[in-house]
Amino acid sequence: MALLSFLFPPKAKSATAAKERLQIIIARERGGRQGQGYDFLPALHKELIEVISKYTKVNADDIKISLDRQGNLEVLDVNVVLPDADAP
Amino acid sequence: MALLSFLFPPKAKSATAAKERLQIIIARERGGRQGQGYDFLPALHKELIEVISKYTKVNADDIKISLDRQGNLEVLDVNVVLPDADAP
Repeated sequence: MALLSFLFPPKAKSATAAKERLQIIIARERGGRQGQGYDFLPALHKELIEVISKYTKVNADDIKISLDRQGNLEVLDVNVVLPDADAP
Repeated sequence: MALLSFLFPPKAKSATAAKERLQIIIARERGGRQGQGYDFLPALHKELIEVISKYTKVNADDIKISLDRQGNLEVLDVNVVLPDADAP
């Protein structure tokens, strides 16, 4: 589980330290033919947020998204700070 | 992007080497109160596969899933080998 050390950027020492956090990483490695195939990551991430909102409250401004491309690899990284269970 | 070295297990030297691959990692770090909150990762992953199938063909037997728990961290790791674009 060395991957764990890469998950969740180091916590801010502020009130968010004890908050529940969710991170979703979607990595797509394209096969041999460069640039082939429809680029669905941006559309995919929008639907993922909708699916997650069914299970837990998510505030749009608590979501940080980054999309990186390197060679034939694309990585979508979504970080969500979840509101406290008893928050209004 | 050191995270990249953790994505995608090393490729088998077989025909799947040039295949398109998708990896989804969902990590949930629970807040201070241990064991609080509904455990939605298993249900979430099922819906994620449905969302992904809207964008690209996915064969159920090409999906490898692992769910690890360590302290207040849960990591769902979904690896999908996508069929060739021109596969029947």
